[in-house]
Amino acid sequence: MRVDLLSLLGIFLAFAAVLGGNWLEGGHLGSLVNGPAIVIVLGGTVGAILLQTPVPVFLHAMRLAGQVFLLPSHDLRGTIRKLVGWSETARRDGLLGLEDEAEREADLFVRKGMQLLVDGSEPGVIRNVLEVELDSRERAELLASKVFEGMGGYSPTIGILGAVMGLVHVMQNLADPSKLGSGIATAFVATIYGVGLANLFLLPFASKLKTLSLRRAQFRELVIEGIVSIAEGENPRNIELKLMGFVNE
Amino acid sequence: MRVDLLSLLGIFLAFAAVLGGNWLEGGHLGSLVNGPAIVIVLGGTVGAILLQTPVPVFLHAMRLAGQVFLLPSHDLRGTIRKLVGWSETARRDGLLGLEDEAEREADLFVRKGMQLLVDGSEPGVIRNVLEVELDSRERAELLASKVFEGMGGYSPTIGILGAVMGLVHVMQNLADPSKLGSGIATAFVATIYGVGLANLFLLPFASKLKTLSLRRAQFRELVIEGIVSIAEGENPRNIELKLMGFVNE
Amino acid sequence: MRVDLLSLLGIFLAFAAVLGGNWLEGGHLGSLVNGPAIVIVLGGTVGAILLQTPVPVFLHAMRLAGQVFLLPSHDLRGTIRKLVGWSETARRDGLLGLEDEAEREADLFVRKGMQLLVDGSEPGVIRNVLEVELDSRERAELLASKVFEGMGGYSPTIGILGAVMGLVHVMQNLADPSKLGSGIATAFVATIYGVGLANLFLLPFASKLKTLSLRRAQFRELVIEGIVSIAEGENPRNIELKLMGFVNE
Amino acid sequence: MRVDLLSLLGIFLAFAAVLGGNWLEGGHLGSLVNGPAIVIVLGGTVGAILLQTPVPVFLHAMRLAGQVFLLPSHDLRGTIRKLVGWSETARRDGLLGLEDEAEREADLFVRKGMQLLVDGSEPGVIRNVLEVELDSRERAELLASKVFEGMGGYSPTIGILGAVMGLVHVMQNLADPSKLGSGIATAFVATIYGVGLANLFLLPFASKLKTLSLRRAQFRELVIEGIVSIAEGENPRNIELKLMGFVNE
Amino acid sequence: MRVDLLSLLGIFLAFAAVLGGNWLEGGHLGSLVNGPAIVIVLGGTVGAILLQTPVPVFLHAMRLAGQVFLLPSHDLRGTIRKLVGWSETARRDGLLGLEDEAEREADLFVRKGMQLLVDGSEPGVIRNVLEVELDSRERAELLASKVFEGMGGYSPTIGILGAVMGLVHVMQNLADPSKLGSGIATAFVATIYGVGLANLFLLPFASKLKTLSLRRAQFRELVIEGIVSIAEGENPRNIELKLMGFVNE
Repeated sequence: MRVDLLSLLGIFLAFAAVLGGNWLEGGHLGSLVNGPAIVIVLGGTVGAILLQTPVPVFLHAMRLAGQVFLLPSHDLRGTIRKLVGWSETARRDGLLGLEDEAEREADLFVRKGMQLLVDGSEPGVIRNVLEVELDSRERAELLASKVFEGMGGYSPTIGILGAVMGLVHVMQNLADPSKLGSGIATAFVATIYGVGLANLFLLPFASKLKTLSLRRAQFRELVIEGIVSIAEGENPRNIELKLMGFVNE
Repeated sequence: MRVDLLSLLGIFLAFAAVLGGNWLEGGHLGSLVNGPAIVIVLGGTVGAILLQTPVPVFLHAMRLAGQVFLLPSHDLRGTIRKLVGWSETARRDGLLGLEDEAEREADLFVRKGMQLLVDGSEPGVIRNVLEVELDSRERAELLASKVFEGMGGYSPTIGILGAVMGLVHVMQNLADPSKLGSGIATAFVATIYGVGLANLFLLPFASKLKTLSLRRAQFRELVIEGIVSIAEGENPRNIELKLMGFVNE
Repeated sequence: MRVDLLSLLGIFLAFAAVLGGNWLEGGHLGSLVNGPAIVIVLGGTVGAILLQTPVPVFLHAMRLAGQVFLLPSHDLRGTIRKLVGWSETARRDGLLGLEDEAEREADLFVRKGMQLLVDGSEPGVIRNVLEVELDSRERAELLASKVFEGMGGYSPTIGILGAVMGLVHVMQNLADPSKLGSGIATAFVATIYGVGLANLFLLPFASKLKTLSLRRAQFRELVIEGIVSIAEGENPRNIELKLMGFVNE
Repeated sequence: MRVDLLSLLGIFLAFAAVLGGNWLEGGHLGSLVNGPAIVIVLGGTVGAILLQTPVPVFLHAMRLAGQVFLLPSHDLRGTIRKLVGWSETARRDGLLGLEDEAEREADLFVRKGMQLLVDGSEPGVIRNVLEVELDSRERAELLASKVFEGMGGYSPTIGILGAVMGLVHVMQNLADPSKLGSGIATAFVATIYGVGLANLFLLPFASKLKTLSLRRAQFRELVIEGIVSIAEGENPRNIELKLMGFVNE
Repeated sequence: MRVDLLSLLGIFLAFAAVLGGNWLEGGHLGSLVNGPAIVIVLGGTVGAILLQTPVPVFLHAMRLAGQVFLLPSHDLRGTIRKLVGWSETARRDGLLGLEDEAEREADLFVRKGMQLLVDGSEPGVIRNVLEVELDSRERAELLASKVFEGMGGYSPTIGILGAVMGLVHVMQNLADPSKLGSGIATAFVATIYGVGLANLFLLPFASKLKTLSLRRAQFRELVIEGIVSIAEGENPRNIELKLMGFVNE
């Protein structure tokens, strides 16, 4: 579980480029700092997502969020080697020969599959049990990624809401034209927060959670295919041939 | 059926942040109150949704709306324990041994499944009957959530409609520039109502209804899987193993 | 086939609220009447949809359009009672006992199913024939609803097209600023027509056609399930149990 | 293959209404003619689609484009009559009795099915061979319709690109306010081209190609169903009953 | 693997038309060059996509990118001829007769299928192994195309972000109206970069990657169908008939 430096670089690059570009143009970064706009955009976005999300989904999203900055730990080739090794063990020593391996296995999903194998369950039952778990996990992870996607959808419109409210305020004080410019400038800052937060942070974040979930699902499909093949007593060479189809990058 | 405090907090936070942020910027909340704009946005949105929605779907949506502020009452782990317990009773005393439990069961969907079990229906028939009901309920709940999604789609565009009508009015009275500012301000208020209503209330509300419906569907799938397994006389340990796959948060 | 008062109320409420709100704000309704803008928005939208839609689909959409203001005549509970009654007749007097009922049946889809039943067709054949018809009707109804959805997509952009053309006209006559305001006002009216037509009429109309089609499909699925169960000689109580799963509002 | 007058009427009506409405408002059509804007919108849109589309897909789209102004030549009722006639011939004279009909058949897809029939292929093989062809044709036609859909997506944004570039030009010459209006007017013309081209021509065109492809697919499904039923030796009356389910307009 | 001149022409035409049109209107190309705007749009877009994309997906996208300017090398008709030839060899000399051909085959996917054939695997196993690989490749290619689609989604909104930040800067310096115009002009350049990059380059590029992936999938489906038919010992004429269904352009 090493840190994914590219993700951290991405988030740093995005904000540095946008703020740096503005500074190069002669903009004062200070004029982009605006307390009320932060209150409107952050408060409105968080409020909307709290209304939208059932409590357990929200907590699950928060737990998954940390993984965005970690490299996926699923090594497909290594897993194939392990599964092919187990299929050889099973052929030589019978399925009970996998008992020790099952206990040493760290990944909970793989371990569940191994235990079904060691218990001598039917291949169809193993596939069924593991697929229920795969579907259920994938759905839960998708719902979690929708928490960030939802925030990325609300934050720009709430930013525009803040801007229009600011413009209403400005329009009612047209008597003093000298303040018109800075009033409009302040109103626009809410738009900047809303659009920036969504496009530089929330939407890429949600997309990454979804991609990571797809890759985990692919890893789990590989595991199901491998364990069911072992249960069916397939020949290790064929198992390797089939599982290598999952590796394509 | 306890109240979902997070949802209530969300709706309060969203409105407080948006109005509070505007107040911090020096805006007068009074200038955001505008009767005609309320008539346009609310009347137009409600009118559009009444044209769009058949009567029974509309009534169903209203009944479901109350649940958004209640915690989902489906306890997956508890239901699994119940189902495993029933599978043990069935093994010991036969399916008729479940007759009392069936009568005591509060959830109508679970009870229907139990009755099919006690009547000695074939596993295939039980699955078929319960899946028809699951699909039909899920479709009806989806249609109901579309009532709020539809309103969330119409309200911002009707807000913009109100703003453009207001601007037309302003443009025709350019002769008196002193009123220009406040005229434009008034016109913009309809946009604020439309965008705010959709993003702080209607769209999160519709999304929550959809997520709650998905979770209910998952609960019902678990129940179907469990009851069909009991009908097939599967071993309680295997039933538990399979059903635990549904719990992933 | 009674009139759906809620739909008529919806369409009345939407237009009354939008126009009334504008009037309350002091707008002159007369300034929203603009012949050229009507020509642009209506002519452009109708032209685009005529190019888009094959003739038979267009005619079908026009025929279906009338149903939007009628209450759906499909009574699910009543249909279940009829089907259960037929299953009892079939058990008592054989499938030929349904001959009279088949001839009296008003709904063409149900009658087709009954005739297949009376002819003694295999359950698999009955299901296959009726499902082909269900799919084909559902696809045709979906295409018809896309006629209104398409118009609802074109009308706002064509309204904006009219507005930009109006602004081009205004910009070329900047020499006379006294006419600037009313020129811009006129230009905006096309936007009002386009956005209003789409959001207060066309899009809700298309959505209702789609929902009505879904409900008809559900009614037809119930009929298929019921007639096939009669053909399979299933027990009337089980048929009722299964069909009640379709009633969920 | 007669010309579809409604489509031609649609394209004429759309452009006449938009230009006529502008003329009624007092706009000069000459001010909507702008060479550079044509270069930007047409050149940009065609360039983007050439980058996007592989050569064979592009050529296929061009070939299909002509069909948008022709009435679909597939007569479902006539085809059903033909298929029922063939099923009677096959019952009377055997499958070889269809040899002459197969050679006379004009539609390539139907002829392929007839040849498989005359060759005495298994029903499952006939279905499989014809479904591979149906899927493959449908996918190719969908890709072709995406050529026009893609252009309809790019042209408005490229129109806006042209407008913003025009505004940049205007803003840098603010010194001469007398030219400001006509400069902005010129800039807006690119938007008119982009939005008009997409909404009055490209998007309805793409949509029609897609609908025509769906109808062709439906015709082919009817043919598959009919030919496979003949191969299975089904009774002509049942074949007619089943195929009539495809006719629903 | 020849260069796809149409794609190169497309990218050249798009940029030439947009810049040339602007030049024809009298715009100075120099005024479209703006360092800070490049920093904001490119930096922000690349940053967002690095956050969004796991490292291996990003690298895969970069490798595939080169293929957009190459003509697809899959010749469907040639492949069908080869497969039909192999089916004749297999009928004459047995599956082992294909051993030499398998070793000479350049395409890795076809070669894997040939080896399974030569090894005498069951048709069902061959189909299963090759379909796992097809699905897995298609999913990986889709993820790769989403890298460019994602950038095409972020770049316009980040361009607007840059414009709004520029306007904030301008609004705070209203005291000097002589600089107002060129300030706004500079602000708009970020929008031009963002919208142009997305619509003239990134989105067409992503779309092409997706279409190429679909065509490769179609090629692989043809190969699977052909190799499985050889394994089933089908007759070469039938194989040709079925495979010709894949050629439809």
